[in-house]
Amino acid sequence: MTGRWVIIATDRQKRPNDFQVERSADKTRLFGREHCPFCPGHEWLTPPEVLSYRQNGGAPNSPGWDVRVVPNKFPALQVEGSLDRMGEGMFDRMRGVGAHEVIIETPDHGRTLAAMSEPEIERVLWAYRERIVDLKRDTRMRYVLVFKNHGAAAGATLEHTHSQLIALPIVPDFVREEIEGARHHFLEKERCVFCDIVRQEVADGRRLVLENADIVAVAPYAPRLAFETWLLPKRHGARFEEAPQHEYGSLAKALKAVLQRMERALESPPYNLVVHSSPFSGDSGDVYHWHVEIMPKLTAVAGFEWGTGFYINPTAPEEAAQVLRSVRL
Amino acid sequence: MTGRWVIIATDRQKRPNDFQVERSADKTRLFGREHCPFCPGHEWLTPPEVLSYRQNGGAPNSPGWDVRVVPNKFPALQVEGSLDRMGEGMFDRMRGVGAHEVIIETPDHGRTLAAMSEPEIERVLWAYRERIVDLKRDTRMRYVLVFKNHGAAAGATLEHTHSQLIALPIVPDFVREEIEGARHHFLEKERCVFCDIVRQEVADGRRLVLENADIVAVAPYAPRLAFETWLLPKRHGARFEEAPQHEYGSLAKALKAVLQRMERALESPPYNLVVHSSPFSGDSGDVYHWHVEIMPKLTAVAGFEWGTGFYINPTAPEEAAQVLRSVRL
Repeated sequence: MTGRWVIIATDRQKRPNDFQVERSADKTRLFGREHCPFCPGHEWLTPPEVLSYRQNGGAPNSPGWDVRVVPNKFPALQVEGSLDRMGEGMFDRMRGVGAHEVIIETPDHGRTLAAMSEPEIERVLWAYRERIVDLKRDTRMRYVLVFKNHGAAAGATLEHTHSQLIALPIVPDFVREEIEGARHHFLEKERCVFCDIVRQEVADGRRLVLENADIVAVAPYAPRLAFETWLLPKRHGARFEEAPQHEYGSLAKALKAVLQRMERALESPPYNLVVHSSPFSGDSGDVYHWHVEIMPKLTAVAGFEWGTGFYINPTAPEEAAQVLRSVRL
Repeated sequence: MTGRWVIIATDRQKRPNDFQVERSADKTRLFGREHCPFCPGHEWLTPPEVLSYRQNGGAPNSPGWDVRVVPNKFPALQVEGSLDRMGEGMFDRMRGVGAHEVIIETPDHGRTLAAMSEPEIERVLWAYRERIVDLKRDTRMRYVLVFKNHGAAAGATLEHTHSQLIALPIVPDFVREEIEGARHHFLEKERCVFCDIVRQEVADGRRLVLENADIVAVAPYAPRLAFETWLLPKRHGARFEEAPQHEYGSLAKALKAVLQRMERALESPPYNLVVHSSPFSGDSGDVYHWHVEIMPKLTAVAGFEWGTGFYINPTAPEEAAQVLRSVRL
């Protein structure tokens, strides 16, 4: 009815979990720093790396890296094979083809993304870019979603700070909806709706969190969750991986500042971060505008949200922006 | 871009919370059974009741009730006033007009819905029906969403078992999408898609959890969450509140059995329950089919889901149905 796809990934039941005893038969596996698969010296605990940055040298899959990207050991999707689309009675299915990778942001188990330096964060963003560019060459893929789950309540199962990416053979619903909405605006006005948002929010100021040379951070007008914050490039651009190099530096600055302000104001909240970018193909170049959405998890998504697709938010965006602006770092 | 509405309800920051110290200034208010606003003898702690069932008599807003419906003390929407739709630059807003009520399912603080008797559960369903029928008379309203948040991880803030309803002046996105999808199926086949699901799942059996005279419970083919379960009436009907009386009895039976099986198999999981029903007006009578969706919260909704609208589910529906079927009650 809704065109929604679900990935059934039964291997993921076997994942280790730093945060809780899992509700499964396999309750004995509890990980700590000693057994962390993302710590230097434990490289053999992950599949072989697909990318690493090594200022200090070192062979692949050995210590010495600053950022390390590896295939997810418990992937939601598998790289091999074809989609084999088929019907099952009235239902539709296909094989779970795609890629699922982990970007280990730092060798330091105890740090958070917010605590990393701006150049270190920029290096992580550059790794996102490099992996997207590489995965684009696989013609079966239509979209790469880059995201980060920080904290157990936001869905993280390992403590060591990391991001993830999932390459998909179909364009996700939400991406398509956002692009269609943006296209509607463009067809009517011949302007990008995100460029309009940037202009209106900078001029208005009430929902502006911060601004630097290339990036604005705003509390969106209709935030789904309390303290939801969007980071948008001022310059129009459809795809994250096609941004000019200086925008990654500015994004790293803005990201660090926003995350630090959230840590201070909201007592280190769990959060999700999602990179929104245009699909590989299609004519969304003029109408869509890449950006990053950060969603702290302060309250649970509940029955109302599941039943409607609407959200009840106890914090006005003007109040959230004001709180984040007034944090002293 | 997306047509999504968000309700900004700053009063809800003041809610008491049984489960955790809130991240707000007001950390002193911790509720227990002694101060529970839903317990008999504490009727003055809620707004005056709009409905109660009192087999043993008693005046309104005094003890003696079996089910009690009251306006939410911290409502997401307010009953008074007009919508005052207006623009704010490029954005759209309206006043938060609607109704937000709480259905207190039993006077007994210590019970869960699963532990209540079938006639007691049926009485709760009947209260849903009566409130929907009453709220329908308010011509400003287009939809009533009935839902239940059980447990803190599912968004409940009070422990005493209760459901909620929210009457809305607009038809929610998800409802509209589901109806449009069902209409698409109907136009093509001249059959209700849910009637087709019931027929296919009963014949197939692999995803069938249980079945009684009027209701089937199934693990849907593409469940968003592990152990998601739908309860559908076998007879076609668009609206929950127009069901024949015997269907509420059968639904109570099926609901109790499913919730008991989940409690046993999943160690009393938090869950959301949502009643899906046709909007008050419109021509969805042939195409839509009311039903109830239950979603246990075993894993967090994370960045992938926020970015795509798709879901990663570690448990196949065939496995979930098999686990629930094999519970010994």
